[in-house]
Amino acid sequence: MKEAIRTAVLGLGRLGYWHAENLVSKIKGAQLVSVVDPLEGRAEQVARELGVEKWSQNPNDIFEDDTIDAVVIVTPTSTHADMITRAAKNGKQIFVEKPLTHTLDEADEVIKAINENNVSCQVGFMRRFDPAYAEAKKRIEAGDIGKPIYFKGVSRDGNVPPEEFIKHSGGIFLDVAIHDYDIARYLMGQEIVSITSTGNILMESNKFMEKYNDVDQAMTYFTFDSGAAGDIETMRIAPYAYDIRGEVVGTEGSIQIGSMRYNDVKVLTSKGSQHDLIPDFPTRFKDAYLLEMVHFIDSLRKGVKPICTEIDGKAALEIAAAATKSFKTGKTIELNSKFLTLQN
Amino acid sequence: MKEAIRTAVLGLGRLGYWHAENLVSKIKGAQLVSVVDPLEGRAEQVARELGVEKWSQNPNDIFEDDTIDAVVIVTPTSTHADMITRAAKNGKQIFVEKPLTHTLDEADEVIKAINENNVSCQVGFMRRFDPAYAEAKKRIEAGDIGKPIYFKGVSRDGNVPPEEFIKHSGGIFLDVAIHDYDIARYLMGQEIVSITSTGNILMESNKFMEKYNDVDQAMTYFTFDSGAAGDIETMRIAPYAYDIRGEVVGTEGSIQIGSMRYNDVKVLTSKGSQHDLIPDFPTRFKDAYLLEMVHFIDSLRKGVKPICTEIDGKAALEIAAAATKSFKTGKTIELNSKFLTLQN
Amino acid sequence: MKEAIRTAVLGLGRLGYWHAENLVSKIKGAQLVSVVDPLEGRAEQVARELGVEKWSQNPNDIFEDDTIDAVVIVTPTSTHADMITRAAKNGKQIFVEKPLTHTLDEADEVIKAINENNVSCQVGFMRRFDPAYAEAKKRIEAGDIGKPIYFKGVSRDGNVPPEEFIKHSGGIFLDVAIHDYDIARYLMGQEIVSITSTGNILMESNKFMEKYNDVDQAMTYFTFDSGAAGDIETMRIAPYAYDIRGEVVGTEGSIQIGSMRYNDVKVLTSKGSQHDLIPDFPTRFKDAYLLEMVHFIDSLRKGVKPICTEIDGKAALEIAAAATKSFKTGKTIELNSKFLTLQN
Amino acid sequence: MKEAIRTAVLGLGRLGYWHAENLVSKIKGAQLVSVVDPLEGRAEQVARELGVEKWSQNPNDIFEDDTIDAVVIVTPTSTHADMITRAAKNGKQIFVEKPLTHTLDEADEVIKAINENNVSCQVGFMRRFDPAYAEAKKRIEAGDIGKPIYFKGVSRDGNVPPEEFIKHSGGIFLDVAIHDYDIARYLMGQEIVSITSTGNILMESNKFMEKYNDVDQAMTYFTFDSGAAGDIETMRIAPYAYDIRGEVVGTEGSIQIGSMRYNDVKVLTSKGSQHDLIPDFPTRFKDAYLLEMVHFIDSLRKGVKPICTEIDGKAALEIAAAATKSFKTGKTIELNSKFLTLQN
Repeated sequence: MKEAIRTAVLGLGRLGYWHAENLVSKIKGAQLVSVVDPLEGRAEQVARELGVEKWSQNPNDIFEDDTIDAVVIVTPTSTHADMITRAAKNGKQIFVEKPLTHTLDEADEVIKAINENNVSCQVGFMRRFDPAYAEAKKRIEAGDIGKPIYFKGVSRDGNVPPEEFIKHSGGIFLDVAIHDYDIARYLMGQEIVSITSTGNILMESNKFMEKYNDVDQAMTYFTFDSGAAGDIETMRIAPYAYDIRGEVVGTEGSIQIGSMRYNDVKVLTSKGSQHDLIPDFPTRFKDAYLLEMVHFIDSLRKGVKPICTEIDGKAALEIAAAATKSFKTGKTIELNSKFLTLQN
Repeated sequence: MKEAIRTAVLGLGRLGYWHAENLVSKIKGAQLVSVVDPLEGRAEQVARELGVEKWSQNPNDIFEDDTIDAVVIVTPTSTHADMITRAAKNGKQIFVEKPLTHTLDEADEVIKAINENNVSCQVGFMRRFDPAYAEAKKRIEAGDIGKPIYFKGVSRDGNVPPEEFIKHSGGIFLDVAIHDYDIARYLMGQEIVSITSTGNILMESNKFMEKYNDVDQAMTYFTFDSGAAGDIETMRIAPYAYDIRGEVVGTEGSIQIGSMRYNDVKVLTSKGSQHDLIPDFPTRFKDAYLLEMVHFIDSLRKGVKPICTEIDGKAALEIAAAATKSFKTGKTIELNSKFLTLQN
Repeated sequence: MKEAIRTAVLGLGRLGYWHAENLVSKIKGAQLVSVVDPLEGRAEQVARELGVEKWSQNPNDIFEDDTIDAVVIVTPTSTHADMITRAAKNGKQIFVEKPLTHTLDEADEVIKAINENNVSCQVGFMRRFDPAYAEAKKRIEAGDIGKPIYFKGVSRDGNVPPEEFIKHSGGIFLDVAIHDYDIARYLMGQEIVSITSTGNILMESNKFMEKYNDVDQAMTYFTFDSGAAGDIETMRIAPYAYDIRGEVVGTEGSIQIGSMRYNDVKVLTSKGSQHDLIPDFPTRFKDAYLLEMVHFIDSLRKGVKPICTEIDGKAALEIAAAATKSFKTGKTIELNSKFLTLQN
Repeated sequence: MKEAIRTAVLGLGRLGYWHAENLVSKIKGAQLVSVVDPLEGRAEQVARELGVEKWSQNPNDIFEDDTIDAVVIVTPTSTHADMITRAAKNGKQIFVEKPLTHTLDEADEVIKAINENNVSCQVGFMRRFDPAYAEAKKRIEAGDIGKPIYFKGVSRDGNVPPEEFIKHSGGIFLDVAIHDYDIARYLMGQEIVSITSTGNILMESNKFMEKYNDVDQAMTYFTFDSGAAGDIETMRIAPYAYDIRGEVVGTEGSIQIGSMRYNDVKVLTSKGSQHDLIPDFPTRFKDAYLLEMVHFIDSLRKGVKPICTEIDGKAALEIAAAATKSFKTGKTIELNSKFLTLQN
């Protein structure tokens, strides 16, 4: 096995910082050697705080550094295609946050670059690494529920992003539901072939989303190539918790993933029994972010493909695009791409 | 208050028998004086078993009997319109199983007959009387979750009816989802104004449903006049339990109705923790069937309207018809009826 | 099977009234023909309300009435011995509320009278009929947890009775813990052979209990003839709910009985998830009170012994007496009675 | 704040290795500079694996090394007194696994040494750092349940240690129940003043414990100086899971700590709903072991006392000794030590 993977993180926003922190202190076989952020001073600050030897404002310093094995791309989505392509051309192994790219054309470009340069690419669908989803995958593959026939997903967040973010987010299907599209493919082990989407603005305060043809609540219904089906409910306005649920119904049973319970503490009073709910996505998926990075480094050390590649990234993108189109046209959209690798 | 409501049950299938049994022994102020069933010998058998004084094969014997105050109609849906009309014309108070009638035209007819003859009519949407749904209604009205903005329903049954039943069932939207349509209106306190439906046959063994343009799994998405929305997932093929869930998301919280747990018993072994699931609808809604009949008798004794009338019956029917149309056309259907009374 | 059991209820306090109501309207094969209460007018009032044909202030009117088959004794414990003996001598079948009698000597007397007159006697340990405990019994007998090795009981009530009641209650072990002693024997299928008890007054407001050598919180530890053991925690001061839990640990697993959850409704807000708790014993054991009476009537109609006889009544009494003695002396008390029938 | 605490781990069994691993990679402000184990080659092996600069078979190499600030003592209990005393005399800050020492006399000795040398000492009662217990502590202090009046603890492990371990374990009260004694004091914020204990050997296969006057199941009942009380059930033979539960009843409510659920995954089949149980103590308390070490290092860097000192270590020891005595004599044991600091 390779000794240590010399890694750089590009983009030091919240997620980038997490990845950097995890790489520094919690992942065996990883060595964080450089951090990059365009913001004046940000890279240096993080480097000093985490004890990283190099920092830069310019990604080129990474791409051209022969001592660096792998890059973790956490820059804005609009830059992903460029970053991935340059990383690939320089022989760097790649981890990129979801979504893979902004457009399907870009996705095809980066897939080409990745293949031509023979590098590995893992896309940040961290739910696959969440212990509950991972356990569900294992159980489904073990046949505990028979053959999967229905996927049901709920993703509700109460944290409405500011208008500026919504404007550039690509819409609720691409920005939020994409996690469920990926996990649906993964858990079902099947490809989505048709999509019907709809949605609405439920909160007065989100009326501004109309300008961007976006909504604060959406529903996607889809079918799989096997004849199975599924639905995904997506909400930006849950007032009570960060509420992520998954379920796969099979011919012999059903598997439910996720509880909203936070602490293993119940308070019983004459008003009833109370327990806390998971307040936000860092609380819910902190472990998953660590575990996906562990997997990235492990795969590189072992020289094997990660369970979540650029092909999965493109598949999710294609589904999200179809969902968006269905929402805008009111029509069911057929998907006829055959993805070469449905990762298991 | 009126002393005792002299009641007759028309139709002695499983549900009719339950109603008869409840009326005989468990409902204060009710007196079951007659039972009717067209099947040779059935009425007499039930009458003897339950100690009911009269029986007949002919509904006319009820309608023309001046000592009878109220009828409980549990005959096939195709006969509802006729039964209700005749009951109304003979001044009988009416309880009728859902759906109110087979068609919207029939619904209009029976509403007319009910009004002209000034009788009361309760439709058998028993979920409104289920203790959990009733408590949820109370909590929502108390403002515990703020203003309702989303309804979510799941109704899964594993008991696929025989082809002969499916053929005459009116389809999954009318036969199964109608319970959720009613409870959605009831809990949200709002009228549904647009509907998008879709569905699929997920089990090979149900392919015969294609002949009837029916499916074993359906999804309905709808919006309310207030701008709220909701979705209902309906399944005839749940392999694990009778699984009925409801949820109302409000601006300040969410309320979830129903657990699938059967006994308050957990068995812990090295294989994990196990508890039984509710196996079927009698187990789940037994109490609700009793409580709706208690409400029927109570309303009559007090001379007040029941919480679930022929208007609610027609509303649910109209929604189910729209859902069916959307499923068949792939289009969103607008509903523009204004129901006079949204029962609270 | 016997047509109908002509029954009388003696004592029309809360429990007596419930039994009367159940016998009138909810139990097949039962006929409530008379009610008795020493309080002027009480019996007549109840008889008129429930439509019972006879009433009296004098139990003799029941004992001497040849048309009466069975009596349900819900009079004060101090009168049980006398009531049971007279009922037995007059050939009446007997249901008696727990405890069987006030003293062990009285218990021996009534057992003698019951045997000599060849009548049946069921003691009101209604937990045996609670659906959760009954299911647990079934599971244990099916071998789901292997051989039972430990019983754990919690009984917490928040409803501190008035001093006058405490004074005559016989103490917390006899008045409250006795239900757990019985259910421990029943679920374990084993006899208790040694007892160590202790307890304390935890609430300042209950200091008056000292006068009666009583406590508001008690703990009993005991061993069974098989070498198994168990503990029971008893509390009169639970501020949050009526909290009854049972557990049997076996060599291959454990079975837990009872949840405190009331409605199947959860309210989720930013303050967390809330559900109601069972507020009081009528709510928790309403069904069990009905089911034990169904069993009483059924046993009589079928001419079989009930699952909970005077022998079980005496066993529980003996255990409670030993627990009280251990509490007062600080010593472990051995029990060497061999009960003839451990009911299963 | 102090830059980094240069730390050494003494004893590299399972727990010692965990602490070493945590200190190397997961704790900010800690630097693991040396590991010691008497077993030939063990220290070197661990040092090489974790990248620790020094190793030794001899604790003296640590005590005499001026560059080392703190020691983590995970050696056998019989050596604790000696190790702590030598560490203290050499000015090392101390973390020691529970129990503090083997005897109360030793406890007094080490407390003296700690005080005279003015070093800090944290005892490894890791439950205080478990997120659920910590949250409960916070809630209790916030007054969520009023004034605490009852503590209830259950600790069940199914992993019966070999006879050689039992022989030297000090017995079930000292070896197992001690965690509950500590957490009872901590959560209640009160001192235990009297103890009644009992226990039995429930499994035939554990009869060998008789030789050591030990049992595989024990019950402790105790009272606090405030008049509150509590009970702790301890079991070495749970066949189904690692089952740790805590509860504090207060005058206005109750707080329950811990669920046995492992993954947030439920599998629903016609056999019911199943979820996994926590299999063992590493799974249950992994985080707590990390968090207690974080606290140790943090306290040292900030120069403040840890929340769990040698005084708490002695208190738990004294309670365990009293429990053992009560078990052996069948008498209630009074405790009259006044511990100076009840840590909050």
